[in-house]
Amino acid sequence: MNLNDKLHELKKRLGEVEDLHRASAVLGWDQQTYMPLRGTAARAEQLATLDKLAHELFTADAIGDLLYKFEEHAAKLDYESDEASLIRVTKRDYDKAKRVPPALIEEISRTTALALESWTQARAESNFKLFQPDLEKIVELEIQLANYMGYAERIYDALLDEYEPAMTTAQVAAIFDGLKAELLPFVRAIAQKADAVDDACLHREYDEQKQWNFGIDVIKRMGFDFEHGRQDKSVHPFTTHFGLGDTRITTRVDKQFLPMALFGTIHETGHALYDMGYRVELDRTPLEGGASLGVHESQSRLWENVVGRSRGFWKFYFPRLRAEFPQALHDQDVESFYRAINKVQPSFIRVEADEVTYSLHILLRFELENDLVERKLKVADLPEAWNAKMREYLGITPPDDAQGCLQDIHWSIGSIGYFATYSLGSIFSVQLFDQAVRDIPSLPAQIEQGEFGGLLAWLRTNLHQHGRKFTLDELAKRITGEPLQTKSYMRYLKRKFGEIYGL
Amino acid sequence: MNLNDKLHELKKRLGEVEDLHRASAVLGWDQQTYMPLRGTAARAEQLATLDKLAHELFTADAIGDLLYKFEEHAAKLDYESDEASLIRVTKRDYDKAKRVPPALIEEISRTTALALESWTQARAESNFKLFQPDLEKIVELEIQLANYMGYAERIYDALLDEYEPAMTTAQVAAIFDGLKAELLPFVRAIAQKADAVDDACLHREYDEQKQWNFGIDVIKRMGFDFEHGRQDKSVHPFTTHFGLGDTRITTRVDKQFLPMALFGTIHETGHALYDMGYRVELDRTPLEGGASLGVHESQSRLWENVVGRSRGFWKFYFPRLRAEFPQALHDQDVESFYRAINKVQPSFIRVEADEVTYSLHILLRFELENDLVERKLKVADLPEAWNAKMREYLGITPPDDAQGCLQDIHWSIGSIGYFATYSLGSIFSVQLFDQAVRDIPSLPAQIEQGEFGGLLAWLRTNLHQHGRKFTLDELAKRITGEPLQTKSYMRYLKRKFGEIYGL
Repeated sequence: MNLNDKLHELKKRLGEVEDLHRASAVLGWDQQTYMPLRGTAARAEQLATLDKLAHELFTADAIGDLLYKFEEHAAKLDYESDEASLIRVTKRDYDKAKRVPPALIEEISRTTALALESWTQARAESNFKLFQPDLEKIVELEIQLANYMGYAERIYDALLDEYEPAMTTAQVAAIFDGLKAELLPFVRAIAQKADAVDDACLHREYDEQKQWNFGIDVIKRMGFDFEHGRQDKSVHPFTTHFGLGDTRITTRVDKQFLPMALFGTIHETGHALYDMGYRVELDRTPLEGGASLGVHESQSRLWENVVGRSRGFWKFYFPRLRAEFPQALHDQDVESFYRAINKVQPSFIRVEADEVTYSLHILLRFELENDLVERKLKVADLPEAWNAKMREYLGITPPDDAQGCLQDIHWSIGSIGYFATYSLGSIFSVQLFDQAVRDIPSLPAQIEQGEFGGLLAWLRTNLHQHGRKFTLDELAKRITGEPLQTKSYMRYLKRKFGEIYGL
Repeated sequence: MNLNDKLHELKKRLGEVEDLHRASAVLGWDQQTYMPLRGTAARAEQLATLDKLAHELFTADAIGDLLYKFEEHAAKLDYESDEASLIRVTKRDYDKAKRVPPALIEEISRTTALALESWTQARAESNFKLFQPDLEKIVELEIQLANYMGYAERIYDALLDEYEPAMTTAQVAAIFDGLKAELLPFVRAIAQKADAVDDACLHREYDEQKQWNFGIDVIKRMGFDFEHGRQDKSVHPFTTHFGLGDTRITTRVDKQFLPMALFGTIHETGHALYDMGYRVELDRTPLEGGASLGVHESQSRLWENVVGRSRGFWKFYFPRLRAEFPQALHDQDVESFYRAINKVQPSFIRVEADEVTYSLHILLRFELENDLVERKLKVADLPEAWNAKMREYLGITPPDDAQGCLQDIHWSIGSIGYFATYSLGSIFSVQLFDQAVRDIPSLPAQIEQGEFGGLLAWLRTNLHQHGRKFTLDELAKRITGEPLQTKSYMRYLKRKFGEIYGL
């Protein structure tokens, strides 16, 4: 085989692996949207089989041979060429996948299937003891996993790398330490003025179908193309994609709480626009999709918060929203509504947290996860450690573990090392947006006119088109000239919320 | 490995194959219900990969070895035991799959993908020439396929066996000859009294959501369990199933034609109840699902026609239907409505045919398919041969090929040998129902009360629970004491429609 034939063979094999991942994603989407109650058991078997086969096909020696044969050739090519990137990124995935014994993957899969049940029950009853034995097993398995995958400095590096390739624990810790130093006094200062913002109007009655239609209207304007995707309802909103022509989002609607559907829909659309935007040449290869969870979250949060919770956005949309919901919003204007959707309030539940306190929830989890896998903290002592940090960072104590260390699903499904990416995304979203405004000074004015095409085109050109070619730091340097940094983010928070709270 | 371990190993492998088939079915369901327009290309790749892997896994030598090792052991067991049936049916599938070269499967798949396009265009333009070259290829490929699969007597046997295992062309021809002799004069006699039945009321305006709700209500009463399934909309109604807990049907609603949604929903529910009814021990094995397409169709037609178009059914449901649609049905009573939904009229389109003329449409296709694969008829001469038979059997000439030989999708997707099963199903449905009434004389009275539990329980016990264990003829003998026969069916048609038309 000559090089071209070999590349063809490699892509054919990788395309089949991708097909299995996509099939798995369709089954996952169905499970969370339309599957009838009794479909669960069979669905779990189908997914297990698809995942097992995808792993077997991907780690086949034939793929390794092709990758190794290509590596030398790829080294001569442009780092950012499709071919060099395909070999580089696929080899990174391959080497990792090869280092982990299938038996461990299976054990993690079995353990987490049970843990999801015990966590669900534990959370429902707010009884940590029900989840503790499974969580202990999971922490041990994740430690084993990290040791198989390998790491340079700290064991957490290996786990973080699953979600944020090439990012190290030390880097994240430095970023979070910087944030903490500035955020803690800022949150305290805002807490002193808690009554300065009234968000009661968000809790009035909003017709569900009208909420749905309004969201659709907003995201069409943002650029979500319903020939290439759709929106459905699910208990937990998510974005998934099965190819360049099929990206789907879900949302949930609360009749008594306007932000749930609206900002959820905008958030998922941020993810979806990223998934819809990679170059067609990367389709059905390991380079398709987004660079990492952190970069993905930068897109959802950019649209949700930096755009969707901005004054300019509501200058355009508030009159339309009030026309839809005249009763609920009769006593509101752009300004009072803008303040309402940006109310800051220390709270127990991460997913309901405002922009300012959000990162403190993440910080807490990042620190606890590190302590767990470094065996500095016993699982049995987790609830107490959680509550102590909540007091320290947010000044409040969860009334029970359901509102404390049992609130997130992540650990029960074996996702340790994931949380940090939420904050990395928030931080990067502002760094990106600042650069976009430097490149296109009229961007804020466009947003005030309900025009989002300029921003989307900028994101496509600078970020989306590259798929998984680059890491977060590589992207940050390419696009903004510097690695991921927090100064843009902190300046954004202080300016926006300092103004709202008169600080 | 001892025998138990081997059986476990065999079931494990077959379970994985089943998972792939089910995953494929989920993707197919999604494609026809919710998939956005641009998802098509990627979906085709996903399905091709799943089908290829399922074929590879199923035809693995390891499965063959296990089957051959077991065959001797299974011969000592009860023919109808789960274990003996598993080996027998799986070996039948395995041997067939092994005889066909993967390259031929791929070529058929590639050819039909293109043929589906050319057929769609040809039908839209009613231009047979556009489809002719692809159909010629398909006929040649199907002849090759039949030769690889092998047959005892006629080449069509091999193709028919794909859809109706163990049934021979000679058997079907004998059945159809018998039908033809009785049906042709009967249809002519009815045609003389065409005006005796007025079905104008079916073409009035019926609110779509109300039609949907009415259908749901009917099938819940029939026993469709929405914890184990669901109904969605699609252009072409179908039933699919991904495990004992997840069977799905689709329907379509025409605001101007009541029977479309109503009888479509009942028809698919007949399929679904069969798919929901096999014993749990057969789940995720090759024995799950229905015995054959013919037996499956016996269930859909039993519920749609023998039950759903009976006078007794409408004694119960007509008052309810009229309460839902008082305007459209204000001048109707049970009797006039019963006659309307049973109007007989020679027509061009098979899927719109009434119970009496339906089999003549099938007969025609069965004869033409035989002539094609026996090279007695050239594809180029198909339109003329079609129209000649339409004149002979139904007394009408299609105005164009779109309403003639281009109307069905089947040939374009390589399904030659399929059509016969539709009539075998109709015939068997009456044979089964007659037996059910012999076993439970109160069955007609139950149906008049809207009680279908007795019939469903009888079907479960006698038919559904067995999954794919037995062939149509085996089932007919077990359940009714004789092989498939047409006398029940002809008596049913003559009694029912003789009364309606006063013959």
